[in-house]
Amino acid sequence: MADTIRVIQYGLGPIGCAMARHVLERPGIALVGGVDVDPNKVGKDLGQVIGAGRELGVAVAPSLRDVAAQADVVLHTTSSYFDLFKNQIVEILQAGFDVVSTAEELSFPSPEHASAAQEIDAAAKRAGKTALGTGVNPGFLMDSLPLSLTAISQRVDHISVLRLMNASHRRGPFQAKIGCGMTVAQFNQKMAEGRMGHVGLVQSVGMVFDTLGKQLTKFETTVEAVVAEKPVKTDFFDVQPGFVRGLKQVARGYAPDGEFMLLTFIAALGEPDDHDLITIRGKPELQVKLTGTNGDIATIAITVNAIKRVRQAAPGLVTMRDLPIVTIW
Amino acid sequence: MADTIRVIQYGLGPIGCAMARHVLERPGIALVGGVDVDPNKVGKDLGQVIGAGRELGVAVAPSLRDVAAQADVVLHTTSSYFDLFKNQIVEILQAGFDVVSTAEELSFPSPEHASAAQEIDAAAKRAGKTALGTGVNPGFLMDSLPLSLTAISQRVDHISVLRLMNASHRRGPFQAKIGCGMTVAQFNQKMAEGRMGHVGLVQSVGMVFDTLGKQLTKFETTVEAVVAEKPVKTDFFDVQPGFVRGLKQVARGYAPDGEFMLLTFIAALGEPDDHDLITIRGKPELQVKLTGTNGDIATIAITVNAIKRVRQAAPGLVTMRDLPIVTIW
Repeated sequence: MADTIRVIQYGLGPIGCAMARHVLERPGIALVGGVDVDPNKVGKDLGQVIGAGRELGVAVAPSLRDVAAQADVVLHTTSSYFDLFKNQIVEILQAGFDVVSTAEELSFPSPEHASAAQEIDAAAKRAGKTALGTGVNPGFLMDSLPLSLTAISQRVDHISVLRLMNASHRRGPFQAKIGCGMTVAQFNQKMAEGRMGHVGLVQSVGMVFDTLGKQLTKFETTVEAVVAEKPVKTDFFDVQPGFVRGLKQVARGYAPDGEFMLLTFIAALGEPDDHDLITIRGKPELQVKLTGTNGDIATIAITVNAIKRVRQAAPGLVTMRDLPIVTIW
Repeated sequence: MADTIRVIQYGLGPIGCAMARHVLERPGIALVGGVDVDPNKVGKDLGQVIGAGRELGVAVAPSLRDVAAQADVVLHTTSSYFDLFKNQIVEILQAGFDVVSTAEELSFPSPEHASAAQEIDAAAKRAGKTALGTGVNPGFLMDSLPLSLTAISQRVDHISVLRLMNASHRRGPFQAKIGCGMTVAQFNQKMAEGRMGHVGLVQSVGMVFDTLGKQLTKFETTVEAVVAEKPVKTDFFDVQPGFVRGLKQVARGYAPDGEFMLLTFIAALGEPDDHDLITIRGKPELQVKLTGTNGDIATIAITVNAIKRVRQAAPGLVTMRDLPIVTIW
């Protein structure tokens, strides 16, 4: 057990629970604690809460300081937004843990979050620990993977990434987040209120522009409802024709000489031809089509897989483009 | 010019010349010297030798110590084989340069080259410089890229990579190297004599196994001629039916529980459907199809693109899996 990495799962929503179950099945790491504020979970056996099919002999703690076990790293899956997760990440670092988070806004902090990101970076350096935000998107498909592909480019004129996702087999909260079952009017109102839809396009654009030394002069994003033409039924929703079955988000990043990056994120129930497509215009003209990049499986995988590089990294807030290749291990 | 990286091109064969021309067109780097042993090139203007379309006012030097200019990094494109390039790499490091080489065997030194690799590593550390072997294959398509893709894997059972290349528009020496124009008997005899065909499959298997912590218990490789069924004509060869138009190389890497990696390299004149296919069996089942990964363009690109990470890296002999993401810059 000497080399076993001891993990606390912070956040026991659907993704956190699935991540904790994955930690249980991975060699080389041990699940030693779980944190969630939900009073329906606190005090219950962690194995029961995450659906492990067995008791783990560890109660879910209401906060990190209530976790009794010694640990090395915290896997953090609570919120997408800096104002909600910032204090949690700082607390984790101050407690002396490395942290890998699925918080989308942490993957590549935008200028508007610069001071909060600096606070996290400073806390990490004071503690001698490392913080990383990652996930399949942002964190991989629309940023670090296209960046990796430019390794074989002599010239890059434009990068586009299309993520076309059949959401029928995703989690209920995800299906809700993309507007399933709403009327178009409800969808548009929710979108206007903010904090709905996919988070991360601006972070992916930020990472790519910054890494390639491009100046981001303009960022545009649009979102529209994808409307069902026939009934679509999942375990969570029963969407009738005319109602929303998902969303289409488009983001465009402009350099001084025009559009350099186009990201299209379509997630909808019953969407056929699930795939991702990365197109890099330049020399050479490169096209990469991926199938099988299931969002939940992939996000859980990359978060756990990143632990190894985060443990090796210098202290501070790092991003996927700063680390050596993250791989399974 | 303060931040301009000054480059010496060491080896002025077709790839070296194309690489030097690419250096000329890239911002942020300057071509300050060229080295080649060929008496037909030594003393001539570097611009003329590389086909730059203009004189550069620098004569091709017969050896590195004959290069008068100050420089930062050497791009090395001479030989695939340790016994031929080892002293060159050591000399480059001792002269105080970082080096990025296309030498296939340097990309991930095999156990049989361990002591020579250690000699290079020691020379690099003594000089405080960094050496890297890279290229599109080995260096990317069959090793560091599949490794990057396992970031989103919860479990990997098997990795296969197919590289299916239409060699009709490749360099003459490349077409010769894959046996074009030979009889099958000539091809088989040349292969038996060694030092023909594609170099790098064992290095790619080595990098993947080592990075994923797999024990390589057996490595098998086969090569066979791809025979023309109809005439194929290129700028360099005119292959009649029954003669060799290319090769198919297959490598298999085995872990204790069976085959874990299968690499198939097909390079042949007139081969339609030029593409690469990476298949990762496990959870999830991942398939990635690439089109446009032209070998010469890509190898030149990744070698030049790697300069930035090599300059930032700690001294020593490093490999692609040790560096942060290599991107265009």
